[in-house]
Amino acid sequence: MRRIHVSLGERSYDIRIGGGLIQRIGAECHKLGLGRRCAIVTDSNIPSWAVKTTTRSLKAAGFEVLTITLVAGEKSKNLSNVEKVFNQLASHRLERKSFLIALGGGVVGDLTGYAAASYLRGIDFVQVPTTLLAQVDSSVGGKTGVNLKAGKNLVGAFHQPRLVLCDTDILKDLPDREYRSGIAEIIKYGIIYDPRLFSRLEKDMNLLIAKDPKVISYVVARSCEIKAAVVAEDEKEGGLRAILNFGHTIGHAIEAVSKYGKYLHGEAISIGQVAAARLSEEVLSLPRKDSERIRALFEATGLPVSMRMSKAVQERILAATRLDKKVSGGVVKFVLAEKIGKVRFGLKVEESLVHAELERIGS
Amino acid sequence: MRRIHVSLGERSYDIRIGGGLIQRIGAECHKLGLGRRCAIVTDSNIPSWAVKTTTRSLKAAGFEVLTITLVAGEKSKNLSNVEKVFNQLASHRLERKSFLIALGGGVVGDLTGYAAASYLRGIDFVQVPTTLLAQVDSSVGGKTGVNLKAGKNLVGAFHQPRLVLCDTDILKDLPDREYRSGIAEIIKYGIIYDPRLFSRLEKDMNLLIAKDPKVISYVVARSCEIKAAVVAEDEKEGGLRAILNFGHTIGHAIEAVSKYGKYLHGEAISIGQVAAARLSEEVLSLPRKDSERIRALFEATGLPVSMRMSKAVQERILAATRLDKKVSGGVVKFVLAEKIGKVRFGLKVEESLVHAELERIGS
Repeated sequence: MRRIHVSLGERSYDIRIGGGLIQRIGAECHKLGLGRRCAIVTDSNIPSWAVKTTTRSLKAAGFEVLTITLVAGEKSKNLSNVEKVFNQLASHRLERKSFLIALGGGVVGDLTGYAAASYLRGIDFVQVPTTLLAQVDSSVGGKTGVNLKAGKNLVGAFHQPRLVLCDTDILKDLPDREYRSGIAEIIKYGIIYDPRLFSRLEKDMNLLIAKDPKVISYVVARSCEIKAAVVAEDEKEGGLRAILNFGHTIGHAIEAVSKYGKYLHGEAISIGQVAAARLSEEVLSLPRKDSERIRALFEATGLPVSMRMSKAVQERILAATRLDKKVSGGVVKFVLAEKIGKVRFGLKVEESLVHAELERIGS
Repeated sequence: MRRIHVSLGERSYDIRIGGGLIQRIGAECHKLGLGRRCAIVTDSNIPSWAVKTTTRSLKAAGFEVLTITLVAGEKSKNLSNVEKVFNQLASHRLERKSFLIALGGGVVGDLTGYAAASYLRGIDFVQVPTTLLAQVDSSVGGKTGVNLKAGKNLVGAFHQPRLVLCDTDILKDLPDREYRSGIAEIIKYGIIYDPRLFSRLEKDMNLLIAKDPKVISYVVARSCEIKAAVVAEDEKEGGLRAILNFGHTIGHAIEAVSKYGKYLHGEAISIGQVAAARLSEEVLSLPRKDSERIRALFEATGLPVSMRMSKAVQERILAATRLDKKVSGGVVKFVLAEKIGKVRFGLKVEESLVHAELERIGS
């Protein structure tokens, strides 16, 4: 088992990574001194063995467990489901010392975290991310929230978990496409922060795709470590944290224009990162060789690096980048790479360059 | 104009108390460096001159102003109205630097504060409390939130305003019954913290009831100062802050059993405080003379100090005290007075004593 400590003063917590962790969740929650009543929030896609194991472990440690199951999928990440969760917590009399367990992917984690942040003005919660993407991304950083019709993650709170358990056994049940999509965020950590992680991924990509436990543990732990280091320096998004958005400006725009249907998040940011690498060549003189390595690594993962699209779709993607949450005063700011392992943020990029890049992606 | 500084580190803010303050809200928001777009959240009971004056002042200072008007009343304090506010903010493209202005009583303040805490994971807000109760109570302390069907204020956040403007001119339009109800909280500050404030109220109650500007400014400022001092010591409710609940355990139970219809909050806690004073005689040997002064001051305010009720209602009130949010491990904890100006919190009181007191109130 690997252990990462996230240093945030009195909001510090541990991330544990390894096999068989959910068998021990009850003991871990007991050690943290959490209250007797808790609720597992999960969704209809989570394998029942995982829900049962979690429940059994909590009960064995003396906890009273309520289970709330959401319909799986991004559409569930809304305020009406948050209200349903609140009503269940209230009707089962969860108190200030009670806690929630988010057992699921990013949707469950984000929604549960926001419910925990708001119920009785804030109760504890524990994250058990069940997808590779959630393990390396949404379970670290304290960002919680839900979508509005007007856009994703427009409502939420910063609320840190008390503990994150990344059980690598759960990943065995993950569909291959979703698993590969998670790797897109891992590659991102290499590009923005760690050339050694990037090289390791180049070397061991086949083992990672084959779900080799040792390789998974290493890359999940290293990704969490990097994200934790970035978040510790910039908990509420003033500066450095922006680097986590490498490839996300165009990636989010692709997701928005395709109505979150065609591409998984990791697929959209795979295209977005390859595009950002090319823009980096022009704006920050990223060596062509590095840009090619980036493209090759996404291709080796089996992730898309281009998408066919009409002129009209190109225009809509361009328009969507202007709606990015990070826009301030109407100017779109990019994160771009100087070299693999080193990026800069807050860069203004001429819209004509972005447009040219979209044409290349689409041809 | 009086000015109270609330010291909460980087979340510190000012409370201004005096006449004609909303004319200057635009200039004040400009000084704070708030973003260009803002939204006033108000309700259908707020006099239109106040909404117009606020809007005009903000526009004159260069702000772009959206106005969102809720139906007045406690029933509006729910998640579906919060969602409506979110959707309006999003459709008018309020950004991270945008801010909200809560122009109204406790309902508007609590709901707007929670919307500000959650929109884009937290934007700024300014409080303009328009009732005496909101000026001395809900605008200080950073507690925001809404009700669930299962109970009041079960969902929310701690989110401090950037500025609170207590414009005493707005109180002139307040119905007499609601105004007197606000005085119940002011008397509470005397009991829990300041024997001089209590004596001043005994001396000047007639002037206060007649809305004498000098007396209002003094008692509002002193109340805010006391609440700010208590909150500064205990921002997130671990200890001392509990003293603010003097009279509220029974008061809340009366409100709950009467379904928030018959009594205004100040009326319910008037009965609650007189009952708490009597329990204090028995548990903490509060001198009978002090208990009598407390009762007399509420009577001089024209507030109820007893209520006719059947045995069945007594039982329901007793049961409701057990559901109080401050219950931990099933034991109801009281705040009681040693003398006027000095209280203790976290006191267990035999249920038989509470029961006897309810019989006295009701006879």
